[in-house]
Formats: sequence, C-alpha cells, structure tokens
Amino acid sequence: MEVENMYITLKTCVNGDPSESNLELTSTRLSLKIEEGSKDMIVKNLYVSIDPYQINRMKKYSSSQGTITFATQLVPREKIDAFGVGRVVVSSNPDFKKDDLVKGVLGWEEYSIVQPGSIISKIATTEFPLSYNLGVLGTSGLTAYSGLYEICKPKKGEKVFVSAASGSVGNLVGQFAKLSGCYVVGCAGSKKKVDMLKDKLGFDDAFNYKEEPDLKSALKRYFPEGIDIYFDNVGAEMLDAAVANMNLLGRVAACGVIAEYTDEGKRAAPNMLDVIYKRITIRGFLTYDHHDKHAGFISSISDHLRQGRIHVLEDISYGLENVPSAFAGLFRGDNIGKKIVKLADPREGIL
Amino acid sequence: MEVENMYITLKTCVNGDPSESNLELTSTRLSLKIEEGSKDMIVKNLYVSIDPYQINRMKKYSSSQGTITFATQLVPREKIDAFGVGRVVVSSNPDFKKDDLVKGVLGWEEYSIVQPGSIISKIATTEFPLSYNLGVLGTSGLTAYSGLYEICKPKKGEKVFVSAASGSVGNLVGQFAKLSGCYVVGCAGSKKKVDMLKDKLGFDDAFNYKEEPDLKSALKRYFPEGIDIYFDNVGAEMLDAAVANMNLLGRVAACGVIAEYTDEGKRAAPNMLDVIYKRITIRGFLTYDHHDKHAGFISSISDHLRQGRIHVLEDISYGLENVPSAFAGLFRGDNIGKKIVKLADPREGIL
Repeated sequence: MEVENMYITLKTCVNGDPSESNLELTSTRLSLKIEEGSKDMIVKNLYVSIDPYQINRMKKYSSSQGTITFATQLVPREKIDAFGVGRVVVSSNPDFKKDDLVKGVLGWEEYSIVQPGSIISKIATTEFPLSYNLGVLGTSGLTAYSGLYEICKPKKGEKVFVSAASGSVGNLVGQFAKLSGCYVVGCAGSKKKVDMLKDKLGFDDAFNYKEEPDLKSALKRYFPEGIDIYFDNVGAEMLDAAVANMNLLGRVAACGVIAEYTDEGKRAAPNMLDVIYKRITIRGFLTYDHHDKHAGFISSISDHLRQGRIHVLEDISYGLENVPSAFAGLFRGDNIGKKIVKLADPREGIL
Repeated sequence: MEVENMYITLKTCVNGDPSESNLELTSTRLSLKIEEGSKDMIVKNLYVSIDPYQINRMKKYSSSQGTITFATQLVPREKIDAFGVGRVVVSSNPDFKKDDLVKGVLGWEEYSIVQPGSIISKIATTEFPLSYNLGVLGTSGLTAYSGLYEICKPKKGEKVFVSAASGSVGNLVGQFAKLSGCYVVGCAGSKKKVDMLKDKLGFDDAFNYKEEPDLKSALKRYFPEGIDIYFDNVGAEMLDAAVANMNLLGRVAACGVIAEYTDEGKRAAPNMLDVIYKRITIRGFLTYDHHDKHAGFISSISDHLRQGRIHVLEDISYGLENVPSAFAGLFRGDNIGKKIVKLADPREGIL
C-alpha cells in the first residue's frame, strides 16, 4: 500500500530571524511495505516537537553543526528530523510491533521511516496525555531536570534565576526549583507571561526583560542577596548581567542562547574577573548526555504530575502545514510553554 | 628595640597599565617588642611575591574587591599585604618561636606584624631554596596544581593549551601536564620565552601570540585535533579562540585574565553555541579554595624536584625599592617565571 507523505523541508537557509518562508510543505509517495531483509519500521506521527535549536541546523554555517547528530546541517529540500510521538504502522524491527506508541527522533512529516539503532522508545504508559512525551515527560522535561539537578545542583534556599521562563524548558526549571525549596525568579517577554509565572506556576517573582533598560540593575533588584544558580536559555546581555549578580560558587547551566541564534554578532561577554573571584562555573550541556537519568526522571516527574505539583504548559497547533509558523513563532515569543504541532488524533483508527 | 621599617604603599590608584609611579617606598618606626597580652609576632621578610592579581586591588573599583580577603581594595598610603617568606624575629604566638622560617601572608615591607589566625605556616624543610616557597612550592605551584588537577582533570594523551605559559603559574601547568602524559602547547610574548618553553621546559610546541594576527587560526594550526583543556591566564580574545578550537567535553580553568586587568573594556566573548554543543565547562577558581590539597601537592612536587623532573623558573630582583618596577614589569612581560623580590639574605645573622 502506498500513501501520500507530506513533509516540511528547508527552502532557504535562515539568516537572522526565521520566517515561514524559509520552510515549505511538500510531499512524496511512500510505500507502507518494509523491504525484505530490512529492520526498519514506519511510524505514523501524531505530535511533533517544535524546538528553537533547529534554527542552528538551518543556517549556512554554525559551529554547532559539526558536533552531534541532532545538530547536523539541514539539506534544503530534504526531510527534517525532529522529536515526535507516533504509532507504529508496520514494523520489521523485532523490538516494535504494529500499533505500539513510540517517542523519539521522528520528523516534521506525516510518516517516518525509523531505522534500527535510532533514538526511539516505546511509550510505557498512557496515564498522561501523549503530548506530554514531548514536553514535561520528554526532551524538554529531561533538559530542565538534568540541567537543574546535574549541572546546577540546587540546595534548599538557594536563589535561582531562569531566563525564557515561560518557554518549554524554562517553566519546568522554575517549577522543579520551587519543588526543591529554592527562591525562583524568571524573566519573560510579556506581561501575560510574567503574570502566569507568578500566579499560576508559583514563581516567587518574575519580570518582563523588555521593560528593563538595565538588566544588571534589574537582577540586583530581584536578587538583593545575589544569584546562586542561573539557568540560561538566552545568552547575550542576560548572561553578563546574571554573572555580575552571582554569589560565590555560583553555577550557570548554559542550555540555550536564543538571543544569539538570530544574530551572529550578539555575544555574551561576562566579566571574567567575576567568574574567577566568585569561582563561578559556566557549563554547557545537552540532554543527549543525560539519557541515563531518564528512568529516575520519568518516575519523579510522573509522581509530581499525579500529585498536581506541576502545571503543564502546552501550546499546540494543528496540522503539518502549521509547522513553519509554529517554528518562526518561537523567535517572536508567540508560544507559552512547550510548542507542539499535532498531526493526527491518537484515538482515530489509523491504518 | 626600634627599627626603621621600609614598606611599599599605593600612591595613586591604577587605571590601565600600572607604572612604577603608582607605588611608593616609604618608612615608619617599628618597635620590635610585642605588647603585653597580644599574641602577635614580628617577621623579618626575606622574599616577597610579585603577582598580577594585586592590580585589581589597586583600582578605584573592581568587582573582585568585594569577594575575599586577598582581593580587598588597597588604601593609598597604607601597607600592602602580599605573600612572602620570612624569619620570626620575636613571637608571642605559642605556635611560632624566634628564628622559625615562615611562609604566608606578609607584605611588601621589611618587617610584618603577623596576628594570630593569619594565613602563615612554618616552612617544614630547607631541602630546597627558600624562594621556592613562593613559586613552585608556594601559591603559584598550588594554583597550577589545583587548577590543572581539580578543575581540568587531565587524562593521558589529552591536548592542553596554556596561555602566559612562561609566567609563574603557566610554566608549571605545562610541566605538570607533560608529567601527566598530555600534549602541551603554550603561548608567550617573545621568541626567547617561546624557545625556552620548547627547549628547556619540554613543551611539545609553543608560539608567540604577538605574531599571530588570527588566534583562532593559530590554535587550529597548533591543535589540529582540537584542545581538551585550556588553562587560561589571559582571557579576552585568547579565551574566545580556545573555546572555538575546543573538543567535546572541553574544560577551561579560568585562573587569570591579565589581558583584561589593564583594560576594562576588553572582554572575552566566547561563542556560547560552542560552549553548549561541545558541553564545555568554564570554571573560575582561586587557590584559596584548595588549601586542603596542600600536603599532597608539597609531597608530589618535592618528589618531582628531587628527581629533576621540573625546571624551576625564578626571576628575582633585589631590594624593596625594586618592588614597583618588578610589579609594573609583570604587565610589560618582563618576567620569565615566578617574579620575586629578595629583601634580605636568609643566611645573614639577623637581629
């Protein structure tokens, strides 16, 4: 049997802010039969993840492109791999069978061919909405969890600052830090987001960075006793201001630098005298290195979810054709929480 | 009994490069009698240490000044505490007696009054020249040792880059790293220094940074397989270039940023995309935090010295009046190895 497989492709490399026109919806015919001798499987994608890091793969050049699989440069006109949740349609892989629900590296497409050895796993429980497997119980959650607990090692009472705090990772970092007894302040780019951080997510305080002409003074105001931990999702001036306000033995988890993604010339330039004299650690990390914490993470976060201790923030668009606007929207600050595009209803009988 | 105690004082705050005229030699009368009830002792200083970090104490403002004792702002006209080696002249401290040789926080002066609780200890052995207690067996040595082994954790075969490699700390970092089986390249500011690193200290390679218009390309040439460890003594563009050339899981020990000390506007601005995707750790440190490693350090380095596995580089001036030129000279690159000013001969019968 053959189907029409719609997919998103890179039309032109991104330079600066991405726009919808950098991406294009196209399609190809796909046979739903696995070739003899192959151990591939075909997955019908239900939800796909929309993440800022993809922009670095869309550039003509980024130093990130030579590092790991997820960071390879995207080839115009080809398919774009991305995290997703789907249902197995047909499988020659002995570890998976038809109708298994899976999460892992799929693609911005309706169907993905998954080769053996790919980063993919069965979804163990449907206790929670399937989409959670991309956010709070997926890569965003594990990023927040491993970044906070492995890199920052928070102690009760420590002062934690999170940037892009209403984003997919930031909102969870703040909530996890609160559950660990920290004092947490986040920044975001609108009043609506700031209010939500304070009123709904339980942040101790929050501010709109766009209304702060001097970030260093702003952080001094929000952290009169200094910052112990900075979970950095933005880079640039915010990192400089955080380092200037850090306490002795402060820790910075460098998770993302969205303010630098769209402007090559924009660079953080933290005062190294502060880094030395305050013995600050700035550490870059990728969830990729922390999959060994996956079981502990799932168990811990599932428990928090059952007890209602974590608010799940999802921002879901519908239909593959909306991937370009969902992606470009990340850089306009459109999303609140995890940005996901839903492609098909899990409850629908599918193939 | 009373003596004339000559000392160096800050005449005017330093702004930019320090010059001899920022410092001044002066003197005061000092009674060599300890007041009743006090547990002070008086030390005749034999050698004093000349270190770049003192410049940050001489500025009108530096963010380092609020951090630890050693970093407090110097008050014009007052004495300047500094590491030194001396001999106890008179003591009411039960832990020290007349003629004990001591090392620790003394001052740029002929005699220091040392209060109980000060950072001072007896010199356990005179197996090595006394001056070694300021360099290879002193703070410079412990800085190199703790920075390399605690912060960078070198593995055999790893590629190590050291800046200011002919300086007091840098030359030891390179030699220690060689002893740990690493590939070591250093940079320095003259042909003479570069030749010495290669010919005398056993560095695998070295280069004159002043002859490299593009530091990023230079490091690419010297490290075709990338840098695993960067021991940073200079900051600014060199840190940027090192980060650009680092391998996955690279480590930067931020020990000093001499290139930034004299120019407030000069800042390192490493590409944070590299820091994240290559999971680089940049960690500031001070020897201050690593005094618990002192015994192991002394034992290990003494053994290396006995076996002739470490070359000791000392650059000694004579007489307190030469402290200002010795200090200003650090920033002109005058010194090779540990800069010390000798004030009195340990063999002379003194008081």
